[in-house]
This record gives sequence, C-alpha cells and structure tokens, in this order.
Amino acid sequence: MAAAAAGEPEVIRDKAAMRAWSRRQRAEGKTVVLVPTMGFLHEGHLSLVSAAAAVPGPVAVVVSIYVNPSQFAPTEDLATYPSDLAGDLRKLASTGAVHAVFNPPDLYHRGSAVSGRSAEASSCLEAGGDGHETWIRVERLEKGLCGASRPVFFRGVATVVAKLFNVVEPDVAMFGKKDYQQWRLICRMVRDLDFAIEIVGSEIMREADGLAMSSRNVHLSPEEREKALSISRSLVNARTAVLNNSNSASKHIKDQIVQTLTEAGGRVDYVEIVEQESLVPVETIDRPVVICVATWIGKVRLIDNIEIYIQS
Amino acid sequence: MAAAAAGEPEVIRDKAAMRAWSRRQRAEGKTVVLVPTMGFLHEGHLSLVSAAAAVPGPVAVVVSIYVNPSQFAPTEDLATYPSDLAGDLRKLASTGAVHAVFNPPDLYHRGSAVSGRSAEASSCLEAGGDGHETWIRVERLEKGLCGASRPVFFRGVATVVAKLFNVVEPDVAMFGKKDYQQWRLICRMVRDLDFAIEIVGSEIMREADGLAMSSRNVHLSPEEREKALSISRSLVNARTAVLNNSNSASKHIKDQIVQTLTEAGGRVDYVEIVEQESLVPVETIDRPVVICVATWIGKVRLIDNIEIYIQS
Repeated sequence: MAAAAAGEPEVIRDKAAMRAWSRRQRAEGKTVVLVPTMGFLHEGHLSLVSAAAAVPGPVAVVVSIYVNPSQFAPTEDLATYPSDLAGDLRKLASTGAVHAVFNPPDLYHRGSAVSGRSAEASSCLEAGGDGHETWIRVERLEKGLCGASRPVFFRGVATVVAKLFNVVEPDVAMFGKKDYQQWRLICRMVRDLDFAIEIVGSEIMREADGLAMSSRNVHLSPEEREKALSISRSLVNARTAVLNNSNSASKHIKDQIVQTLTEAGGRVDYVEIVEQESLVPVETIDRPVVICVATWIGKVRLIDNIEIYIQS
Repeated sequence: MAAAAAGEPEVIRDKAAMRAWSRRQRAEGKTVVLVPTMGFLHEGHLSLVSAAAAVPGPVAVVVSIYVNPSQFAPTEDLATYPSDLAGDLRKLASTGAVHAVFNPPDLYHRGSAVSGRSAEASSCLEAGGDGHETWIRVERLEKGLCGASRPVFFRGVATVVAKLFNVVEPDVAMFGKKDYQQWRLICRMVRDLDFAIEIVGSEIMREADGLAMSSRNVHLSPEEREKALSISRSLVNARTAVLNNSNSASKHIKDQIVQTLTEAGGRVDYVEIVEQESLVPVETIDRPVVICVATWIGKVRLIDNIEIYIQS
C-alpha cells in the first residue's frame, strides 16, 4: 500500500505553514485529502484516514486536530471535551497513512474584550470588539435535528470547516456519516459556495456490540454504556420493521424507538425520520430515508442514525 | 507596460473552465488578480483594472461581470440595473490589461419552485426547494450604514464574493472604496474565513465636477445630475470643517451635510461619521474617520464617502 510510506506525520501548527505544505504537495502532483477532527481519536477517525489513503492516485493526507469553540454553546461540554494529543499522534503514526497533522493553537481572531459582552455570548467563542464576526449559515439544513437543541452548533461547524478548507486547501475532505446532518450540511455549503473540494461521507464505525464510536463514549460509566446499546438496537429494529412493511408510518416507527430508549433509561432529545439529502421529515416511509436519534444517557448526549434505502 | 500584451480578453462563462484557467495561470508563475464587477463599466472600474495590472510581477487579470441577484431585495432595482456587455468588453479590450472576463449566466443553484415561497423572499434570488441556502453573514459590519436600509444587501455581497473567490481562486482582489462598507466587510470576511487572498481598496473615481462614478448615474436626468453634485460638495466641505477644528462634534458636521443635501433636493437615507475599520459611529472626531452618505436623488439612490485622517 503506497500510503504506508507516510511514516511519522509532520505536525504543523501555523496556518501559513499549513497552506504552504499543501501547495507543495499539490505542485508535486498529489491529491491533498483532509480529515477534520476534534482529536481524541478512535477507530471511527482511523477509518476516515483509511478512506483518505484509498483516494486514487498519489495522495497527501492531512488530519486536523482542533476543538472548535464556536460550535459549543456556553452551556455545553467544551471544558470537558476529551483530548489526548500524544495518543492521537501515536495512533496516526501507526496507520502509516498520515503525512501531516494540522494542530493550530487557535483558528480565530479574538477581539479585545468588551465589558458585558460575555453575558450575551451564544457560543464558547467570545468575539467582542474587533474579533471574529463572520458566520456561515446553511439556513434550511442547520435548523432541524441537532440544530433544534444546539442553535449555534452548525453555524460553528460550517464556519470552522470553511476556515480549514481555506487554510489546508484540500482537493478531498472526509466526513463521518455518524454526524449525518453535519455531513449533508457541509455538502450543501460546498455546493452553494463553490468550494473546489470533493466531500466523501464515510460509514459509521461501531463497537462489536453495536455502539457507534464517539469521543464522548469515554464519559459513559459501565452501566450507562449498557443503556447506550439501546440506541443502535432500536435503530436496527426500526430498519427491520420498515423493510418488512411497505409504507410504514413514521410516527409508529418513531414511537417504538422512543419507547426502547426510554425503557433503557435514556432521555430522548429527538427521533426523526427524514429524507436523506434535504433532511425534511417524512410521514410515510416510501422513499430513501435516514432515521436520526439523539439521546441523553446520564450526562452524555449521544447521536446515531441509520440509512434505509427504499425504492420510491 | 507588460500588461499591454493582454489584447482581447478571453470570455469565460463556465465555472469549471474559469477555475482551470486560473490554475493554469498560477502554474505559469502568474499572480491572478480579480476585479469583481456588475458590469456597465465606467472609469471607476477601469481604474481598478489599472491597479490590478500594476500588481508587481507577472499578473493574469480577470474581470468578472455578474449582476448578483441575491444582493437586491425584491423592492429594489435589479430589473432596471443597467447592462451593456458588448460595450463592457470593448472597454476592457481597450485597456490592453485584461486577460479574461468571467461572465457566468448564473452563479446560484436554483431550487425547484415551492408554491407560496416567493411571498417570503427577502432577496431577488428565489431559492426554494433544494436551491441555494448558504449565506455568509459579517454580523457587525453588515448592520449599519447601507445595511440598515438594505437588510439583505451585504449577506448577498459577502456570499457572491466568496463564490467568486472559490471559482476564480485569485491571489489578489480589487475593490473600490466608493462602496466603503462593502470593502471593509470583504476585508473582514477574508480575515475571518482565512481566504488566501489580498484585498486591495482603490480610491474613488470622480467626474470632473466631483460626482462619484457609479453605474446608476446613467439614470440621473440633467437636473438630478446637478442636484447630485451636492453630495461630493457637502463631503469636501465637511472635511475642510473637520480639519480646521480639532475635536469637531459629529452631530454638527452631519447636520450641515444633511442640510446641504436636503436644500439641493435630495432625500437623505443616512449621513454617518464612523471609524474607518470598525465602522462604529464616533461622537467626537478625534481619530481617523470616514464620512458616509446615502441619499436619494429622484428615483436613484447614490452613495459616497470621504476618509479623513486625523492623528488620535
């Protein structure tokens, strides 16, 4: 495998150095492939790295590690978001497929503090004075599902991804389908803003027992971990039910998932059955859909989803 | 002058062809310079072309001609915005400094029509169904001055400029300071989103009698044209007053400008004295400012401004 020649990835912390690196790679005829992450890497991330290495032709694979403050509301878990840079670098080196790691200390212009401003902050990125003020809104796709309970999340995601695109200038970027709405929203942003970047969505990686891999799983106690299995179990059962009954009513399927999650001790944020590209809810399941779930297990909010391909 | 070798510019209408052209130029070691316009070119635009040709080193100058629907509200003058592509191409060819003209038939993804949607349209870009939905908001700079009376204007400008940046991939882009707020807003967007593009602001070009050049001037009757001279006259007088009196009160200066414009028969939209970069209004003129004016002369809305450099 050609990618095995990568060895130790070069760690780059400066934006200008990152862009210069990418331009050198492209000048040498390589396809620059970006895998954006927030670190604390697991097998799900490494599957994105494998997919990046498998892009045809000579590739230069860049993994970015940056916990983006602007996608967290002040009430959310930025402060406790897990990190382990040394471990991440070891894991990436062991793949032999990563050529550079982009790990900037900060990606935003921070404004001079404005008194009283923090009270009105809608995200963990405090941007008073002449600080960051430019936001990308994907107005329809940002609204439902996770956008309903996390109003600044997708604004922050779209904006930091655009920044990474402009710094790294990749030809291809990999996103996991576990963050399904994020993946669809990035595809839409790339289309609407004409980024010259191919977006690849990678399948969800699961533990042997079915739990979707997530950096936040580390916060689950053994009991919570057991309860969390209800998520993937309810989704697989829902798919079986849908495939066995043409034109299932969404409400019926959703009710069953909510019941399974609640009985297991979860506190449901949402269960939605939506069209795969528009994420518009469907009443009758007569076309390809994705069932998306967000639920709290103890203090941890977990998301998962399952695509169902039905001939319309 | 090296730029004289440009001759007839190549007219490109397709996004992919435009990007390929730019990448070829850059591969040949040239600096790609973009001059974004909405056409109906006048000496102001041609001064941007001259500035583009004067960028050091070998350059490839691209002028884009595209009337951006998303920056017009449905109540505004998109339908009557003047155009003359043949004349524009002649003028650009005569400069000998333009290598390509990017003139796309459309830049947006138009959605399948959704019934009843046009009633809620906030811009002349109708984007129902799966149409364009991604907007760039520069949240502080978009609000005051022209943003107050034209609420979707800067959303549309920032978005179309980002699209042009991603299609043309220039190294340098030229903007006229006549659209002062636009220039500052684009600078902020480039900083915040990490576009690898240098933004150059070019001085306002004026007719011999002082009227700032604008494509909309063509709509002025001879009488209105005479009235419109009050704009530049009031600004020059204001600068003289400010420079002759340290710590002038903004209110006093603004009142004088409003009086001059009103007496001439104008209907003032706004007169503001603001900091040059933040566009925050100042009460006492004790630092560098710009005085910005928008006024209706008959059915034509005209803007103008003057920078005043005061040691703080």
